Amino acid sequence: MDNLVLFEANNVPLTPITFLKRASECYPNRTSIIYGKTRFTWPQTYDRCCRLAASLLSLNVTRNDVVSILAPNVPAMYEMHFSVPMTGAVLNPINTRLDAKTIAIILRHAEPKILFVDHEFAPLIQEVLSLLPTHESQPHPRIILINDIDSTTNPSSKELDYEGLIRKGETTPSLSANMFLVHNEHDPISLNYTSGTTADPKGVVVSHRGAYLSALSLIIGWQMGIFPVYLWTLPMFHCNGWTLPWSVAARGGTNVCIRHVTAPEIYKNIELHGVTHMSCVPTVFKFLLEGGHTNQSQKSPPVQVLTGGSSPPAVLIKKVERLGFHVMHGYGLTEATGPVLFCEWQDEWNKLPEHQQMQLQQRQGVRNLTLADVDVKNTKTLESVPRDGKTMGEIVIKGSILMKGYLKNPKATSEAFKHGWLNTGDIGVIHPDGYVEIKDRSKDIIISGGENISSIEVEKVLYIHQQVLEAAVVAMPHPLWGETPCAFVVLKNGEEELVTNEGDLIKYCRENMPHFMCPRKVVFFQELPKNGNGKILKSKLRDVAKALVVKEDDAGSKKIHQRSVEHVSSRL
Amino acid sequence: MDNLVLFEANNVPLTPITFLKRASECYPNRTSIIYGKTRFTWPQTYDRCCRLAASLLSLNVTRNDVVSILAPNVPAMYEMHFSVPMTGAVLNPINTRLDAKTIAIILRHAEPKILFVDHEFAPLIQEVLSLLPTHESQPHPRIILINDIDSTTNPSSKELDYEGLIRKGETTPSLSANMFLVHNEHDPISLNYTSGTTADPKGVVVSHRGAYLSALSLIIGWQMGIFPVYLWTLPMFHCNGWTLPWSVAARGGTNVCIRHVTAPEIYKNIELHGVTHMSCVPTVFKFLLEGGHTNQSQKSPPVQVLTGGSSPPAVLIKKVERLGFHVMHGYGLTEATGPVLFCEWQDEWNKLPEHQQMQLQQRQGVRNLTLADVDVKNTKTLESVPRDGKTMGEIVIKGSILMKGYLKNPKATSEAFKHGWLNTGDIGVIHPDGYVEIKDRSKDIIISGGENISSIEVEKVLYIHQQVLEAAVVAMPHPLWGETPCAFVVLKNGEEELVTNEGDLIKYCRENMPHFMCPRKVVFFQELPKNGNGKILKSKLRDVAKALVVKEDDAGSKKIHQRSVEHVSSRL
Repeated sequence: MDNLVLFEANNVPLTPITFLKRASECYPNRTSIIYGKTRFTWPQTYDRCCRLAASLLSLNVTRNDVVSILAPNVPAMYEMHFSVPMTGAVLNPINTRLDAKTIAIILRHAEPKILFVDHEFAPLIQEVLSLLPTHESQPHPRIILINDIDSTTNPSSKELDYEGLIRKGETTPSLSANMFLVHNEHDPISLNYTSGTTADPKGVVVSHRGAYLSALSLIIGWQMGIFPVYLWTLPMFHCNGWTLPWSVAARGGTNVCIRHVTAPEIYKNIELHGVTHMSCVPTVFKFLLEGGHTNQSQKSPPVQVLTGGSSPPAVLIKKVERLGFHVMHGYGLTEATGPVLFCEWQDEWNKLPEHQQMQLQQRQGVRNLTLADVDVKNTKTLESVPRDGKTMGEIVIKGSILMKGYLKNPKATSEAFKHGWLNTGDIGVIHPDGYVEIKDRSKDIIISGGENISSIEVEKVLYIHQQVLEAAVVAMPHPLWGETPCAFVVLKNGEEELVTNEGDLIKYCRENMPHFMCPRKVVFFQELPKNGNGKILKSKLRDVAKALVVKEDDAGSKKIHQRSVEHVSSRL
Repeated sequence: MDNLVLFEANNVPLTPITFLKRASECYPNRTSIIYGKTRFTWPQTYDRCCRLAASLLSLNVTRNDVVSILAPNVPAMYEMHFSVPMTGAVLNPINTRLDAKTIAIILRHAEPKILFVDHEFAPLIQEVLSLLPTHESQPHPRIILINDIDSTTNPSSKELDYEGLIRKGETTPSLSANMFLVHNEHDPISLNYTSGTTADPKGVVVSHRGAYLSALSLIIGWQMGIFPVYLWTLPMFHCNGWTLPWSVAARGGTNVCIRHVTAPEIYKNIELHGVTHMSCVPTVFKFLLEGGHTNQSQKSPPVQVLTGGSSPPAVLIKKVERLGFHVMHGYGLTEATGPVLFCEWQDEWNKLPEHQQMQLQQRQGVRNLTLADVDVKNTKTLESVPRDGKTMGEIVIKGSILMKGYLKNPKATSEAFKHGWLNTGDIGVIHPDGYVEIKDRSKDIIISGGENISSIEVEKVLYIHQQVLEAAVVAMPHPLWGETPCAFVVLKNGEEELVTNEGDLIKYCRENMPHFMCPRKVVFFQELPKNGNGKILKSKLRDVAKALVVKEDDAGSKKIHQRSVEHVSSRL
């Protein structure tokens, strides 16, 4: 057995860019991309990617070079998920919602050779460049503009833009070879910065192997059939769109690209193109509800929606499903190259009462096929917790889909990977049926009189209240118990004038959860502070809660809280 | 980028045995195996496999040791697909339809440390052992009996049998660890002998990596949803049941194991257990047609059938579909660890007339996601043929799912892998839409007056004839044209007395194909010679055709041919 050596034919690196060549050969007549009036077929998309790759090589881009992009979900963003790694270089998609200062920090750290910028962000990037140092050891990246492919007006500048590079690129034999310039599947394919709210963002390096496996297991976990019509509501800069650029190519699907994610855009495109799949963070559910056509579900099969990023309240899922969407809940993290747990629906659950179904649907679920293992461990003893659905511990994972590490940050990398697992920092339980449920981020757990209180559990109850649109619960210092829950609540539009005030909500909580879990303070907000990915910034709310510390029996009044809102709003 | 090293958590070998631990943890209440009155859940199957693995270790089985098994599709056969590789050893499933001499050749070549034998084959194995040499340098394998798990009678012998090993096995920490004893994904998981009809069988070595990727792409290519109920009509000894033992575990499905594949068994189990999926060689279609309930399709959704091994005639597919089955056609070979092409159905085809649909459904299709590439090449120039659906060439493939090589046969291995591809020996075309269609095995092509005649094309026309049950066409020497087609035909039951004779069939052929392709001789058989996998042995038919060589204008008579049948039958 040991005498068998590997041959060229049976030792092929795993990389998701092979899915593009396959789609161009196996589905030559299918539409790959729709963007406004623009339509491409898979052979066209393959040709465009090869041409851009050839142009990148002529600009001296080589293996392990970083190529950054700041763009919304336009065709260029999709194509660069293939063309950049084709050359052996590393794609670095930057969150377009970040401010100039944060983008400058990322560019200084990532040191891209080229930065592609969508025309919408040209002014922002001027500001960013002014913040970058100008010394020779770290030259500015070459900037290449992405003009709108759907626009008839050409750029006045003679500077080569994205479409110019595609026109100019001529495919060489080495590029048209099957594996392009990928020689090792462990080589990096992408560099994604986490949205760290406290420290400088960390650069997660993803490998070809990890991206390939993650794209396959997403197809299986989500049961994505052949030829999906996929609407790009999830930003591709967000963890490479959960590896979906590659999965959609693997399935010979159609990518419906949109520049702005709004309810009218979503509903219009669903209707126009027969969208079958989309994915989004739960924040987008708010748009769907606000712009919802109630007869959607009667016209066509439900749109399959994969959601994750934060735990969607079960009632929110139900409301969205009534509009003609079918929601699957997943759990992932940038460090894991995409979703790693899927809440797989079991037929038996259909017989359960609705409230139980809602509880089940909200769990993070079971590991996907390419995650080798998941466990929940006591953070002190490192022992696995019992599978009782109650005992909390840290969720740890392992498998070849995990990141290679953080760029230029060996300390954070070994910290993340210590004890032989990737330590997610999420606190959860395992139910007897094997489904994992997240109870909180480890830093969001509230410790009150020695009891662990999951802020998410408290939020779940608040979300069930019919007047609550959004809720976030954080720890507030307490003279007796150490910490106690403090709730930040956004009421539904036009319902601020209704009866609900702090006292009502606290009373409601006491009727619906153990007393020690009840918020002792409720603050009403017009809008909760969120980061670029739409995640609620609990660190900011904790700062507010600290300032709001009250005596044990201070009942407060609505007036005081509304003052707090004004005070807080100016700070966020 | 180059400074990132691999950690224990993100460098996990790819092996399909992880699917078993996952199923036991994620689907703890689901039925894994049904066999007669026996039922197991996934945790039970996992426990049994770990126990058997522990017993194997205690019998000094170590990495790269071969463990053989001669058994039908009983639970032990399924379990050993996990328990043997768990120990780092290599599973060698032996075709139960082989004769003692061929099995002895395999055992001498594979040198298994242990041979598990189902009680049904105990007498056969005694005969095999008597054929093995007895010198010390190659000791006989230790024989372990698999008694019927469903039987109440225990073996009279005190010898430890399969169930005894499971009872005795105690899982060690190293075995219960996630990756078991697999340290390198390129290590062998299985050793499968091809059914070579001319030379000694060759031992195909399959890697953990190949099996893992193949199992994943089978799920995607066949669109196998969660929780399938899979009926084991395909022998697991046949190319590891096309990797389905691992795919079904990955999907948390139920394996319905049956000892004998007969029409009543198939239909009974479909009804009893709500079978959703099965796979088989087209020979099984004959059983289905003979024992078919015509109202099957009205009772439940169609059973998904994956077929391959040889090209099923389109009319046969249609007939089977009318009985309540939905057929998907795949193409694979032992050297590729399972199916590598799937005839993916395109919705647009539903609008075409039935005969065109039948033609499309019969093509081998497009490559699965884990096959890196497929091409059809001119065997002399090694250039890709044009994608015109006409120009024939050899089908070549590459990808990490391919075998490691042939055991102890470096010459055959480098021959198979020469020019950077695995050369399949199958002759085919690529259609403009990217679908591959096999025209023949390279050795089955008939060269008549310089024209290539695909024997399969001629057979297709014969199969459409309403009285033809089976047909095989081979080359017959011809004084003028070099070779000419000779057809071997089995007529339908009870229809031998009808009008069809050789002259009628040749006339029918001349009306339905170019004259140069028409068989100049038709031989009627009661049964065509087949190998252990049910493939028609064209080499045997060629021998017959050589003996039957006739003058250009000899029309022959039915009587003469029936004499030929008797003559031939005694030789096969």
